[in-house]
Amino acid sequence: MDDKIINKILDEVMKKVNTEGAKSSAPATANFRSSSMTEFVGTAVGDTIGLVIASVDSALHDAMGIDKKYRSIGILGARTGAGPQIMAIDEAVKATNTEVLSIELPRDTQGGAGHGSLIIVGSEDVSDARRAIEVALKELDRTMGDVYANAAGHLEFQYTARASLALEKAFKAPLGKSFGLIVGAPAAIGVVMADVAVKAANVDVLGVASPGKGTSNSNEYILTISGDSGAVRQSVIAAREAGLSLLQALGGQANSVTKPYI
Amino acid sequence: MDDKIINKILDEVMKKVNTEGAKSSAPATANFRSSSMTEFVGTAVGDTIGLVIASVDSALHDAMGIDKKYRSIGILGARTGAGPQIMAIDEAVKATNTEVLSIELPRDTQGGAGHGSLIIVGSEDVSDARRAIEVALKELDRTMGDVYANAAGHLEFQYTARASLALEKAFKAPLGKSFGLIVGAPAAIGVVMADVAVKAANVDVLGVASPGKGTSNSNEYILTISGDSGAVRQSVIAAREAGLSLLQALGGQANSVTKPYI
Amino acid sequence: MDDKIINKILDEVMKKVNTEGAKSSAPATANFRSSSMTEFVGTAVGDTIGLVIASVDSALHDAMGIDKKYRSIGILGARTGAGPQIMAIDEAVKATNTEVLSIELPRDTQGGAGHGSLIIVGSEDVSDARRAIEVALKELDRTMGDVYANAAGHLEFQYTARASLALEKAFKAPLGKSFGLIVGAPAAIGVVMADVAVKAANVDVLGVASPGKGTSNSNEYILTISGDSGAVRQSVIAAREAGLSLLQALGGQANSVTKPYI
Repeated sequence: MDDKIINKILDEVMKKVNTEGAKSSAPATANFRSSSMTEFVGTAVGDTIGLVIASVDSALHDAMGIDKKYRSIGILGARTGAGPQIMAIDEAVKATNTEVLSIELPRDTQGGAGHGSLIIVGSEDVSDARRAIEVALKELDRTMGDVYANAAGHLEFQYTARASLALEKAFKAPLGKSFGLIVGAPAAIGVVMADVAVKAANVDVLGVASPGKGTSNSNEYILTISGDSGAVRQSVIAAREAGLSLLQALGGQANSVTKPYI
Repeated sequence: MDDKIINKILDEVMKKVNTEGAKSSAPATANFRSSSMTEFVGTAVGDTIGLVIASVDSALHDAMGIDKKYRSIGILGARTGAGPQIMAIDEAVKATNTEVLSIELPRDTQGGAGHGSLIIVGSEDVSDARRAIEVALKELDRTMGDVYANAAGHLEFQYTARASLALEKAFKAPLGKSFGLIVGAPAAIGVVMADVAVKAANVDVLGVASPGKGTSNSNEYILTISGDSGAVRQSVIAAREAGLSLLQALGGQANSVTKPYI
Repeated sequence: MDDKIINKILDEVMKKVNTEGAKSSAPATANFRSSSMTEFVGTAVGDTIGLVIASVDSALHDAMGIDKKYRSIGILGARTGAGPQIMAIDEAVKATNTEVLSIELPRDTQGGAGHGSLIIVGSEDVSDARRAIEVALKELDRTMGDVYANAAGHLEFQYTARASLALEKAFKAPLGKSFGLIVGAPAAIGVVMADVAVKAANVDVLGVASPGKGTSNSNEYILTISGDSGAVRQSVIAAREAGLSLLQALGGQANSVTKPYI
């Protein structure tokens, strides 16, 4: 049997092997991508799920420590990602009559170096909570755009010209001012990015967080900045260039999870 | 060469590929499933190991802060699972002359969203500690029965008609009363399950835990309930139905780790 | 077509499948193993990266809480490993004019049971910080030598005849005295190793750490010891023998990450 035939068989087989491999790591969930429960709103990248409770049970209100005037709550939770979800909720509360009740950061990312998230918004009317979660789920595709990952770690960048209530709650971002977020994992890379960022433009440092302080023991170093919109953007972009160079030196090509927006 | 032959080869190859794949993810450990050390008791699902120390060294007694009247300790530790191990130890202390000395919850599950566990029981006589660990290892197959997992997360449910000392220590469960545990990961799903559970029957809320409070930063929302045995069971079952619908919408089919018992 | 031919094809295919499999789990990073940034020093085992900042920005100095007399900092960060990196930095500060400014332990190891690390050293002159990180990166191959891992967990052992400033900062090791570190994951195995260690030789217990106390919720039990050099070494070796027997009973063959040195 000549090599041509063997190669033809090889090609066929490799095609099939790769298809089966893909299947096993991402199971055939097509049939499942919905739930008949009225609480279900939708899903998004990062194993993010959006949910709503129209009328929270009184016992749960007490246990959660939520003011009873918020009859309805919207819930955004994810295995992978905290910054992107907080940014998405920030847009959602701008667009709806809701309030951010709590932001919690599990140590997650499914074996990765960072956080997952559990964000709860409250409203008097369920339609507001539902609308907020819908907006957030839609925004996630964008806010995941400047997340870059490879086998060794990840980088995250966020930028907005006008911070709203979710960013204020999570990062003490001044309301209505420009805000930037720079995250590097492993944390060592984040330290260098922070230095590059503050040297690149005249910005105000809101804070830093590290594995032992301000994170849930994630392997991240996080810088948050505020200030003039052009300066914040310039600072974030400089950090991104530095971070990509370092993360790729450690673990190879690091691609955007969706599509860069900054 | 016709397609039939190629398909026959493909089948053979895929059989071989899948076998090799299975081998590499579950190494041939048959030869290892025991240890000659007298401390070794056994292993169980969830990378759980059971161990015993007949006579704890005095220096370790001090460092661990364990009362010296407990000459012997039994140790149950796992990479995956805390609730199932606590339930199993609860049965073990009912059946033996031992006391639960400590329950610690690492953030683990090997890249998953939850906890592992380290549980230590004490006794004056080594045979009691050993017996307790043996009972617990045996119970684990049952208490893992209402753990359901897929690539996106997991759910856990526990129910007992009569809580004992391990559940009292871990969750402040009233002794001798019915107890239920409801866990959802990612945490967002757990919030909805908690609401469904308290609405489904007249139960007392013992507490809730979340990524930022009461867990080791796991991506779980946890509800513990007590009350009339029938009501607790009904409440847990309602939560299970809701949770499966939501987790499967996020990540596809979620099967029991062993065999459901509730 | 006879079986011989099919087998020949199978062999060819399996060779190719395995090559592609290896590729996908360890992406072709050859082109990336460096960075043009002046901050980049190098990489090492455990997804460890070494970096240096010649002149830390004043705003970052403040945010990090670092004394401004340390104009330069060296940064050693890793996804996998804390003990090996601390040991490596301990040698580095012995050999250079630098000080250990901070040691932080993220809960990491990329889905494993332990920690990653972020260690910062300071110097007045950048050449000292750079040299320290170079020394540490070189040492890592050795200090990873008594780390043993399988799918169920890992063990780590460290020993030095003479502890220096990094071990003092991280573990309160007495300066200039012999020091030993014994780590077992899942934590249950570490408890038994601790008992074996203190029984094996006359050593001083510096401390223990567990999932709920002294770790970042890792699934590890950690014993640190000090004392006569021969006794410390004997104690560590006894614990290693016990730990390997138990970890292998749980998860099969556990090999050294590099090459044992103790």
